[in-house]
Amino acid sequence: MRGRPELHAVIMAGGVGTRFWPLSRRKRPKQFLPITSERTMFEETAARLHPLVPPVRIHTVADAFQSRTIRRLAPWLPAENVIVEPRGKNTAPSLILATARVHLRNPEAVVAVLPSDHLIARPGLFRRRLAAAAEAAAREDSLVTFGVRPTFPSTGYGYIHFTRRGAKTRGGEMFFPVLEFREKPDLKTARRFLRSGAYAWNSGMFVWRASVFARKLERHAPGFFPFWLRMAAALKSRSRTGLADVFDDIPALSIDYALMEKAEGTLVMEGDFGWSDVGAWSSLADIWPRDASDNAVRGEAAAVEAGGNVCYNPGKLTALVGVSGLVIVETGDALLVCRKDRDQDVKKILELLGRRGRKQFL
Amino acid sequence: MRGRPELHAVIMAGGVGTRFWPLSRRKRPKQFLPITSERTMFEETAARLHPLVPPVRIHTVADAFQSRTIRRLAPWLPAENVIVEPRGKNTAPSLILATARVHLRNPEAVVAVLPSDHLIARPGLFRRRLAAAAEAAAREDSLVTFGVRPTFPSTGYGYIHFTRRGAKTRGGEMFFPVLEFREKPDLKTARRFLRSGAYAWNSGMFVWRASVFARKLERHAPGFFPFWLRMAAALKSRSRTGLADVFDDIPALSIDYALMEKAEGTLVMEGDFGWSDVGAWSSLADIWPRDASDNAVRGEAAAVEAGGNVCYNPGKLTALVGVSGLVIVETGDALLVCRKDRDQDVKKILELLGRRGRKQFL
Repeated sequence: MRGRPELHAVIMAGGVGTRFWPLSRRKRPKQFLPITSERTMFEETAARLHPLVPPVRIHTVADAFQSRTIRRLAPWLPAENVIVEPRGKNTAPSLILATARVHLRNPEAVVAVLPSDHLIARPGLFRRRLAAAAEAAAREDSLVTFGVRPTFPSTGYGYIHFTRRGAKTRGGEMFFPVLEFREKPDLKTARRFLRSGAYAWNSGMFVWRASVFARKLERHAPGFFPFWLRMAAALKSRSRTGLADVFDDIPALSIDYALMEKAEGTLVMEGDFGWSDVGAWSSLADIWPRDASDNAVRGEAAAVEAGGNVCYNPGKLTALVGVSGLVIVETGDALLVCRKDRDQDVKKILELLGRRGRKQFL
Repeated sequence: MRGRPELHAVIMAGGVGTRFWPLSRRKRPKQFLPITSERTMFEETAARLHPLVPPVRIHTVADAFQSRTIRRLAPWLPAENVIVEPRGKNTAPSLILATARVHLRNPEAVVAVLPSDHLIARPGLFRRRLAAAAEAAAREDSLVTFGVRPTFPSTGYGYIHFTRRGAKTRGGEMFFPVLEFREKPDLKTARRFLRSGAYAWNSGMFVWRASVFARKLERHAPGFFPFWLRMAAALKSRSRTGLADVFDDIPALSIDYALMEKAEGTLVMEGDFGWSDVGAWSSLADIWPRDASDNAVRGEAAAVEAGGNVCYNPGKLTALVGVSGLVIVETGDALLVCRKDRDQDVKKILELLGRRGRKQFL
């Protein structure tokens, strides 16, 4: 290789979810909410690529509705970089499409795949690590991924089992051979993973050369390779209906399940740049600034013997008396008050509202 | 006496307080809030007099600012019945003024003094009892009051010690001689009062003939009688400055302390018409309808394993997950989340906001 690899970023912005209800709704998923800062998580994801990846090489992949939101939030994105999925069908279809698009421009370009709803507390460090990962992806015939060192035995993340033997240095960073991708473990297994030191959380960020991705698909995910070929053809002929046909047929699987768990030769580097998937309201207790009583508040707070609460009520006053361990979210039309350790049960509220036919709140 | 007494009502609407913050503010005290129904408590107080007391004999007493609110809420009130205090100085000055006003129209008229921020669940029964009390006040040289049978050893109310000996029947109701007015007791004393059966809660509602009130003042509150004479003179000559001068001089004492505790011959009847002083948010748990999980809610609620909460969020959705025993109040600019057994500490929030200079919230 001569010089730096041509690094493209693909921001996956197609996610939906309920865990930030009532702020998140069907038409306003987590990545389009200003929960980690005054900007939306999508905007933060795009902004932290500067100056490593220029706008002309930043792409997004999402459905038509979400893509309109993207164009509104990022009018500086070249229109052709806003890749519109005919419909949302999980990450394998999204990433086959996005990688095929980059492949059309330059098969030897490197693609960094980035979720749009994760927090990275140290963006400068992130860019250095990403540049090194791009270097590794350019020089090796490997898919490259970031693993986050576990701090507790989480049962909510997938894990990457790696080995320190055969580590390589690329771009000044260490890359370790991946032995296996593991899906979300039970608590006992998670504890074993934590103790062993050879397991990292799967951050869902991947880096690969477009041509390497195609070859890995062909060899390790042969069921998906025909879809790659059909998408590439549809993109080349600019056929919207051709693309829609592929999306009708392709299985709605995750890239982890479709490819990463099966591919060989994958490398992992440590993602030590303050990564968090910001999984639910309670996780913001560790992200937002906290007052002297350990309340994490967006908006103005007044607390009397109240601590350890997470409050989202921007531009307004939240007064707390004698309460602790609560998530409190006010969004104008709806108010949520939830025990912090029960925030996964917010989905039950949505089920209840669905049964009542209260669509305006979904 | 011939026929029915000429019964006037004086609605005391001058109160201020913090216990319904953030809905109540300095300029919007409890009596002007729609907390027990869709109407304000003041409007409910006036409405429940119909048809016993016609509008021409309903008066209000409050300061100039509050009187403007009254005129807006009750445009049907004769303008001259909206008695404006030069400034708020507790209930003794208010009631001397209001009774002097009625006295000017008819010294033998009966005055029923009614707080504007109490709930009466059975208004028909209330009117029957009130008519009988008016009959007693017209025929006896007595101040008449309503006592509420205690249901728990409250330390938050004053008590009326009465005797069943010498009871009189007037208007078909029993009236008992008052032995003594007692201020708020400690818990041990309150328990003794509850056991004895000879103590009733002081409801703060009084009925008296104007001329009797004047004589009782002269005999039992001689320090206040000169103010009565000065107010009567100022009213007769329509002198606003004369009235303001009296209000500069008169001590700011309650009618209980100034007169009721000292007067002799007072009669009490049972106020068994579903009286509540609605002392704080938590008291609404017993007043508002409750859902299957015992949540008392104004607005729409969706609850998952959450019960025993009081929520005020009209026109909006409140979602509760895993929480119990909370008071939750949303008012557009401010949100309160408070443990039900700590609602008296809401005043500490106001102190805190006062120290911060956040006058908009006070």
